[in-house]
Amino acid sequence: MPVVVTNITRVPRSLAQEFATLGVATVHEAQGRKGLLASNMRPIYRPAHIAGSAVTCEVAPGDNWMIHVAAEQCQPGDVLVVTPTSPCQDGYFGDLLATSLQSRGVLGLIINAGVRDIATLTEMKFPVWSSVVYAQGTVKETIANVNTPIVCAGAAINPGDLIVADDDGVVVVSRQEAEAVLEKARAREANEEQKRVRFENGELGLDVYSMRERLAAKGLVYIEAEPEE
Amino acid sequence: MPVVVTNITRVPRSLAQEFATLGVATVHEAQGRKGLLASNMRPIYRPAHIAGSAVTCEVAPGDNWMIHVAAEQCQPGDVLVVTPTSPCQDGYFGDLLATSLQSRGVLGLIINAGVRDIATLTEMKFPVWSSVVYAQGTVKETIANVNTPIVCAGAAINPGDLIVADDDGVVVVSRQEAEAVLEKARAREANEEQKRVRFENGELGLDVYSMRERLAAKGLVYIEAEPEE
Amino acid sequence: MPVVVTNITRVPRSLAQEFATLGVATVHEAQGRKGLLASNMRPIYRPAHIAGSAVTCEVAPGDNWMIHVAAEQCQPGDVLVVTPTSPCQDGYFGDLLATSLQSRGVLGLIINAGVRDIATLTEMKFPVWSSVVYAQGTVKETIANVNTPIVCAGAAINPGDLIVADDDGVVVVSRQEAEAVLEKARAREANEEQKRVRFENGELGLDVYSMRERLAAKGLVYIEAEPEE
Amino acid sequence: MPVVVTNITRVPRSLAQEFATLGVATVHEAQGRKGLLASNMRPIYRPAHIAGSAVTCEVAPGDNWMIHVAAEQCQPGDVLVVTPTSPCQDGYFGDLLATSLQSRGVLGLIINAGVRDIATLTEMKFPVWSSVVYAQGTVKETIANVNTPIVCAGAAINPGDLIVADDDGVVVVSRQEAEAVLEKARAREANEEQKRVRFENGELGLDVYSMRERLAAKGLVYIEAEPEE
Amino acid sequence: MPVVVTNITRVPRSLAQEFATLGVATVHEAQGRKGLLASNMRPIYRPAHIAGSAVTCEVAPGDNWMIHVAAEQCQPGDVLVVTPTSPCQDGYFGDLLATSLQSRGVLGLIINAGVRDIATLTEMKFPVWSSVVYAQGTVKETIANVNTPIVCAGAAINPGDLIVADDDGVVVVSRQEAEAVLEKARAREANEEQKRVRFENGELGLDVYSMRERLAAKGLVYIEAEPEE
Amino acid sequence: MPVVVTNITRVPRSLAQEFATLGVATVHEAQGRKGLLASNMRPIYRPAHIAGSAVTCEVAPGDNWMIHVAAEQCQPGDVLVVTPTSPCQDGYFGDLLATSLQSRGVLGLIINAGVRDIATLTEMKFPVWSSVVYAQGTVKETIANVNTPIVCAGAAINPGDLIVADDDGVVVVSRQEAEAVLEKARAREANEEQKRVRFENGELGLDVYSMRERLAAKGLVYIEAEPEE
Repeated sequence: MPVVVTNITRVPRSLAQEFATLGVATVHEAQGRKGLLASNMRPIYRPAHIAGSAVTCEVAPGDNWMIHVAAEQCQPGDVLVVTPTSPCQDGYFGDLLATSLQSRGVLGLIINAGVRDIATLTEMKFPVWSSVVYAQGTVKETIANVNTPIVCAGAAINPGDLIVADDDGVVVVSRQEAEAVLEKARAREANEEQKRVRFENGELGLDVYSMRERLAAKGLVYIEAEPEE
Repeated sequence: MPVVVTNITRVPRSLAQEFATLGVATVHEAQGRKGLLASNMRPIYRPAHIAGSAVTCEVAPGDNWMIHVAAEQCQPGDVLVVTPTSPCQDGYFGDLLATSLQSRGVLGLIINAGVRDIATLTEMKFPVWSSVVYAQGTVKETIANVNTPIVCAGAAINPGDLIVADDDGVVVVSRQEAEAVLEKARAREANEEQKRVRFENGELGLDVYSMRERLAAKGLVYIEAEPEE
Repeated sequence: MPVVVTNITRVPRSLAQEFATLGVATVHEAQGRKGLLASNMRPIYRPAHIAGSAVTCEVAPGDNWMIHVAAEQCQPGDVLVVTPTSPCQDGYFGDLLATSLQSRGVLGLIINAGVRDIATLTEMKFPVWSSVVYAQGTVKETIANVNTPIVCAGAAINPGDLIVADDDGVVVVSRQEAEAVLEKARAREANEEQKRVRFENGELGLDVYSMRERLAAKGLVYIEAEPEE
Repeated sequence: MPVVVTNITRVPRSLAQEFATLGVATVHEAQGRKGLLASNMRPIYRPAHIAGSAVTCEVAPGDNWMIHVAAEQCQPGDVLVVTPTSPCQDGYFGDLLATSLQSRGVLGLIINAGVRDIATLTEMKFPVWSSVVYAQGTVKETIANVNTPIVCAGAAINPGDLIVADDDGVVVVSRQEAEAVLEKARAREANEEQKRVRFENGELGLDVYSMRERLAAKGLVYIEAEPEE
Repeated sequence: MPVVVTNITRVPRSLAQEFATLGVATVHEAQGRKGLLASNMRPIYRPAHIAGSAVTCEVAPGDNWMIHVAAEQCQPGDVLVVTPTSPCQDGYFGDLLATSLQSRGVLGLIINAGVRDIATLTEMKFPVWSSVVYAQGTVKETIANVNTPIVCAGAAINPGDLIVADDDGVVVVSRQEAEAVLEKARAREANEEQKRVRFENGELGLDVYSMRERLAAKGLVYIEAEPEE
Repeated sequence: MPVVVTNITRVPRSLAQEFATLGVATVHEAQGRKGLLASNMRPIYRPAHIAGSAVTCEVAPGDNWMIHVAAEQCQPGDVLVVTPTSPCQDGYFGDLLATSLQSRGVLGLIINAGVRDIATLTEMKFPVWSSVVYAQGTVKETIANVNTPIVCAGAAINPGDLIVADDDGVVVVSRQEAEAVLEKARAREANEEQKRVRFENGELGLDVYSMRERLAAKGLVYIEAEPEE
């Protein structure tokens, strides 16, 4: 039988907030290129950038009942992550639910399904990453799990894990690894900043990353284009 | 043989205009969750919001001839609805046709195919909902029906039906039901407004909609998360 | 074995710049409706409009090594065109590579794969047309060709060909035909301008293009809608 | 509120049976190239070929309750046509429902959604045309219409219309037009048979259909390939 | 760094073999409608039906190196489950690898990517469930994990979990739950057998499942079709 | 203006026939992993395996006129390769055209669009690789090129090039390289045969290909699974 797990352990809010300026690509790289949700998860408006603890929520296809149940489990700084138990495009979420979540301090929604009322959500500045925009309404008949481990858009997510989302998409960081990933992400940012200066000055990646020797060893050959008659 | 039906009966323009402030999701709900076009019908710019009577137009794949025929049948307040007789992505419609339609008072275009010149259409403020953006040109060789019943993006549409389109997509309302749907949509809006205030005040959907008892009856169980060691 | 072809012949820069105000749809029409890349090649921000010479670059799936090699072959006014050797969504390109290309005067990137850091790319005003946005990182292990003929998003492209890209998508013009296409494109624009005035004045395409007789010959029939009881 | 319409008028069974040897392509052509369901509607085994009267059935996403309701409305010679009210892949139909329908003389199932138990359905020789094969189970919570007009896979279908399905897909013929379409389809078959003999004898379509003059008038030019050095 | 986990605990082989006659749909239902892989995972030939313990294997896009590493970890009765670290269609697996696995007693392959040499695999009776068939070759450059938890085609799979695959697709059963699921699956089969007899005898699901009262309570209405004039 | 190029140079028929027993995967590898058509090009029946010279044919969307023109250019041993000038699913080709081509000795059809009458084509043993099966009919209004270079399903194909197609898909070999590729493909087959014996005897790819040292150098680590309590 479906369960709602209460009082989950979250990433400390201060830690989550540190991620709010780190891009999804940077975080994904810092944790060894894992945890990305599929590329069809797109923000309804741009730019958007959030970082918070996941409250996970399963929903039956065409049935948004459990989002109301999950809302009660949300705290300020949370990100609600919703996945249907089979593929569905319906518009599970609109401006009323967004008003509810926003009033509770929820930072945004990640949903591998449809969202609606996006003009209003954009005005409200309540960001949503979804696989589709669709006005189709849903019923309230079937229960499912809240705050259990889920797979959302190809990524395994545990309740309390850290979610980072920006214009590039969505990445999940294991709660247990969040602190270590933060450190690596910052180191990566600092390193990239140095690289950026070199690139701005016209240096090539071939030299910045010392690639020429290894390319030659692989057998890469340079030839002149044939002259035009 | 293909026909062009002239002098179709439309939704009264004043009635259509009442829908111009009602969202697609609201209208779709108000008429019993029917009439939505598929989720791949997206506006070329946002925000966009129109409501008007449908002039329906079939086109052969890769052939936009009948759009010119349909243009003559359009009146101020109309929405042109175009569907290819088999799936096609070509760019049937561009800035010249938009200029023609706009000069005739047409509010926008719904096309289950491609559109082009979208930078200019955006500047002109001529909204288009299409399944794709594609510059591919079309020929003018094959005739088809104008103002006959069509299926566009999964929805059955009769000429003169009401089309409402916004950032969420496109919905069709039967001409005969438009007045009744308007009333229900307004009632729904009023009801939602009350709900919104309660949500803003932090009330939960579980309480606003009195869901707790029914959830328990379905067997939903709440359990504490296991404590972290 | 893979090769890098150096010193390719380009479209003269002054000629390329003439195309910068011509839309993709116009250029595509002017050259006989060929050369369009597939409709899934979309700009990361709008409006965007570039025209320049192609530097072509193959990449292995999930491997962006050759983009660094290709960067060295780029000159001011070039457009880098990247295609994976099998379908891939990975984020081959981000803000550091964009910084490098921009510092070399490259106008933009066309890539039939993923791009990342799009918020930064948007701020930098470095336009990218890609099939997807995805933060997934890539490796640097496998070499491939630079500046050889490629197929990108369904279009055959030779190094040095002219690339024009705008909000409608991307078109390639053969280097040898660029001058002739420019002339035709301008003629087309002039002709469209005349048509636009007629459409603004309410003339119909049926008359502007003298279609009525041919439609009748095809058998098109006009019938009155049945009166409503 | 949803309704079940009983005692619908069907295509006479003897008339439907006349279509059982006519291919979908032939029928589609005979009625003026209309009525085809989308190309994603594929048979679970081949060859398969049926023709019968449609019993139409809407289902909510992930909810197969109404198929049980529709089963009662089926008679020998019927074809059950099921469409979800929003896109869904779930496995609405398996071997038990097939046993029920087969015992009632139903010829097969058309469903714009998922089917399961296809190994058993294949053994039972109960043909199904579906958009997907998927074992995902469904609930029984939401009611919908039976024997009302529907759109299934892009085609408008009325209860009692004739459905013809074979390895090429599915076509619907309006009940009112079935007799006339039969006549045209047979004429077409006879005509094709004559053509087939000519093609077998090596005649070209260019001559069989007298195309050469019209091609030349369109401007088609024949040129010799350049000789190889 | 990537790891290969050796000596994983498996579902006992005798237990796995009990599942070899149970359909994927039955197992999926018996465990509460979870564990299904996405519907795009299709067998290369039909019928095919296997049940065994999962050896899990990540692969980089376009790189099949780790399949060779995973092969060494396979035992008789295993099912190899391969997932790329980002979406890829390449043909990771062909007849040589199949020969190697078959000689080690592996029952089949589940791969969310491409497979090739399917004519030979079909002759060899080595079943593969894949998302695509594609001859594209792969490199051997990048290492990844073997026998760690993965997400494959939307389902979370741990090494040693039970995989059941048939013509309907693929389902994973947690190793810890396999015994309990077996019991429920058999009970379900027995129950279905009883139902089947009733359906064969012409009873309706409406009566077999006692649905009429609940349908009426939901408001379902039966109306006569309007008589034809 | 469109042209038909006559008297193209072909791969010698005896050379083409040598490829008829070589798999698409083998040929693709032998020529350096290039020339594959996209994975959506699937045979209408299996097994099927052909090798012959390409006659190339462009068609307008929804218009199969040029296939009749191309038929006249076909000789025994040819493979007709058809690509629409923009994406189209229509059923361009059916049993009459197949009868015509078969009577001229054409080996099969490659078409990046739809095909119909597949039950009859299967009986006739006329193989077709297509992107879709669809009964939708086409018109004959627009001319296009025959025997000019085309891009079909992502691959550049010149008239007279060698086409090899089997259950894995379709590959093109440049006419100029066909002889060299044949030699390499045979060497590859011989080499694979030796490998196959070793795999049958239980040797691992790790040893057959001497991979262990390089894997260790990359940092691959083996760890024992944690014991179950």
